[in-house]
Amino acid sequence: MLKSSNLRINLERLLNRIETLAQIGAIDGGGVCRMALTDEDRRGRDLVVGWMKELHLDISIDRIGNVIGMRAGIEPAAPVLTGSHIDTVATGGRYDGSLGVLAGLEVIATLNQANLTTRKPLAVGFFTNEEGARFAPDMMGSAVHQGVFEVEDMLRIIGIDGSTLGEELDKTGYAGDTQTGAFRADCFIELHVEQGPVLHTGNYEIGAVEGVQGISWTEYRLSGTSNHAGTTPMQLRQDAGYVASAISVEARRIAKSMGADQVATVGVTELSPNLINVIAKAALVTVDLRNTDEQKLQQAEHSMADFVTEICNSEAVTFESRTLARFEPVEFDHSMVKLVAETARSLDYKVRKMPSGAGHDAQMFAPNCPTAMIFVPSRDGISHNVAEYTEPEHLRAGADVLLQVLLAKSR
Amino acid sequence: MLKSSNLRINLERLLNRIETLAQIGAIDGGGVCRMALTDEDRRGRDLVVGWMKELHLDISIDRIGNVIGMRAGIEPAAPVLTGSHIDTVATGGRYDGSLGVLAGLEVIATLNQANLTTRKPLAVGFFTNEEGARFAPDMMGSAVHQGVFEVEDMLRIIGIDGSTLGEELDKTGYAGDTQTGAFRADCFIELHVEQGPVLHTGNYEIGAVEGVQGISWTEYRLSGTSNHAGTTPMQLRQDAGYVASAISVEARRIAKSMGADQVATVGVTELSPNLINVIAKAALVTVDLRNTDEQKLQQAEHSMADFVTEICNSEAVTFESRTLARFEPVEFDHSMVKLVAETARSLDYKVRKMPSGAGHDAQMFAPNCPTAMIFVPSRDGISHNVAEYTEPEHLRAGADVLLQVLLAKSR
Repeated sequence: MLKSSNLRINLERLLNRIETLAQIGAIDGGGVCRMALTDEDRRGRDLVVGWMKELHLDISIDRIGNVIGMRAGIEPAAPVLTGSHIDTVATGGRYDGSLGVLAGLEVIATLNQANLTTRKPLAVGFFTNEEGARFAPDMMGSAVHQGVFEVEDMLRIIGIDGSTLGEELDKTGYAGDTQTGAFRADCFIELHVEQGPVLHTGNYEIGAVEGVQGISWTEYRLSGTSNHAGTTPMQLRQDAGYVASAISVEARRIAKSMGADQVATVGVTELSPNLINVIAKAALVTVDLRNTDEQKLQQAEHSMADFVTEICNSEAVTFESRTLARFEPVEFDHSMVKLVAETARSLDYKVRKMPSGAGHDAQMFAPNCPTAMIFVPSRDGISHNVAEYTEPEHLRAGADVLLQVLLAKSR
Repeated sequence: MLKSSNLRINLERLLNRIETLAQIGAIDGGGVCRMALTDEDRRGRDLVVGWMKELHLDISIDRIGNVIGMRAGIEPAAPVLTGSHIDTVATGGRYDGSLGVLAGLEVIATLNQANLTTRKPLAVGFFTNEEGARFAPDMMGSAVHQGVFEVEDMLRIIGIDGSTLGEELDKTGYAGDTQTGAFRADCFIELHVEQGPVLHTGNYEIGAVEGVQGISWTEYRLSGTSNHAGTTPMQLRQDAGYVASAISVEARRIAKSMGADQVATVGVTELSPNLINVIAKAALVTVDLRNTDEQKLQQAEHSMADFVTEICNSEAVTFESRTLARFEPVEFDHSMVKLVAETARSLDYKVRKMPSGAGHDAQMFAPNCPTAMIFVPSRDGISHNVAEYTEPEHLRAGADVLLQVLLAKSR
């Protein structure tokens, strides 16, 4: 009989699933647009649920649309849980999120084929709206699952296209009956692409993720006065567009002045009326600030808030600000991180312990059960982009480490 | 018999026409959205042409859609021409352009009622797409009329909504047979609202416009790399959105450093994909620079061009730039300006000689015939805004000065 430590996943089967799922919402350049609770997301969900059924998983769907497939263990116990998400940003890649879900299914397929039953149950889940690209906040499904947000509050959220989350969830058919938060995992382990350049640049195959950056998302709605671009003296302008651009430039200045661990992005800028010869009456900008250190993240937030107040005063523009998401930095379980690193080394992979620059579903589980993540390299660090790519051998590495970590935890 | 110098326009009749035209494309707040060659523009044209017919004007429509209504004089001669435009920006007021056309018709109505025939013919025109808000460049109809642009080139222009100018012109039914440029005026005089704060602030009733600022419109299309907002180190970013905002902030810096006569506006900013947690792959910005001095305008253009090259280099973003409009500063005819000022004073109005901060159809006529403009105050200097307002007594002042200047020139 095969020793379980010698079990390996089937790369071809995993690649086939990744390729098949990537066809749903496929866009030019090999990318995917499968934003949360769209028709594409529904079709992606149907595909993955179909695979879960083929793998004989016991499926439950909760009220926010999280789907969990359970594989019974020898003993009744809290399951060892893995998973991620299958929603994407508008111009996303095929690995972000999907890899963690499909590698989880590949682990199940491998165990089924080996006819191996673990002591504790195993479960694979995908969580609703991790990206937050259509409905803020991000990591919504896992946050509701772990009791961070109330499901009723989330169902009322209005998306960037004016749609209501609850209605869109109903349309997909994934508004389930299972109470959110009823589920407790023995532990949680998530495989994900790094989405940054650290592993690729350093020729590492595996990242043992020690924690996640804190995230702060703020939206500013600026109101000035629309006026003629030729006849209005500079000192009399109330230019909401100018203030929007000054906020973006200041975000860059803050990040540069605080150094490597602080990042800042203004990804959204919209002017109204958005005409060449009219001073903008209104503008919308979003500021995304991240740091692994909560104190420094707060420092960045305060710097930005002070600047917005000051520039709006000097331009006689008014503003409303709204926090779209705020998560403190998260530290993962030391013994789980160590297990990931040791497992990878035992499989002869070069490992680096590192923080995650992106938010992930795993961080929602971290306060409630031992949690960690496995990263695999993203070529050139590119993600949230159709050019996102991870080499097949790195996919194999990640899935094999996931398999062995799940076996170790469910033994 | 009434001496012609004692003739006065009928304010109520003028106000009625302004109100009636403002109903076409009316938007909240008393403003108007009647962008060039839209269905609203067509309905506005039909209304004004109907009035021209009622006033027994002989109407011609040229190939770019300019409409001119002629009133015969005692002698055959080149006509004394007045007029302006009836297209608006997306969130425009009811006076910008329309006043000059409707006051011209009011002058004709006054002369018809007095049964007074001038020695030279009089003509009232409205010129296609003065605003340039849907199709760049602005002042298009008058520019074609005076031979600055070729009509065939203009008919091929693509608008901000992807439409083709020639096709939209055909749809309105105002693609006329008259050759553009065939027409020569004896002189041109245009009444317009100031669209700036000078007259209102100084309690003047009439501006005798000495010339028009030079205008430079440039569009920049920026291409960077879309990437994850959390995992991409600041120094590795190719953020097209950041470059766009830096251009906007630099435009402000240039204007401030050059002083009062230089204005700069970034009215358009669009990011792609325009998502909170994705570094922008592409951005579109427009820069509107104006100065009464050609040398200084060129200095501002060079400063901006140098900055764009530099910031794109430092961010590893590429760009394409395109000139959307470029007009040198224009000086109006000294004797015409003097006539406007003296006529206003003879009617007991307080007059200020001044440059125009905005571009106007009149500037296209200035190289080819004696040309000037009459300004009336804009409350608080507000224009290109639904709150644009000129007091009825100021409308009367402008139309009476127009009447007397037209009589003086056509005598």
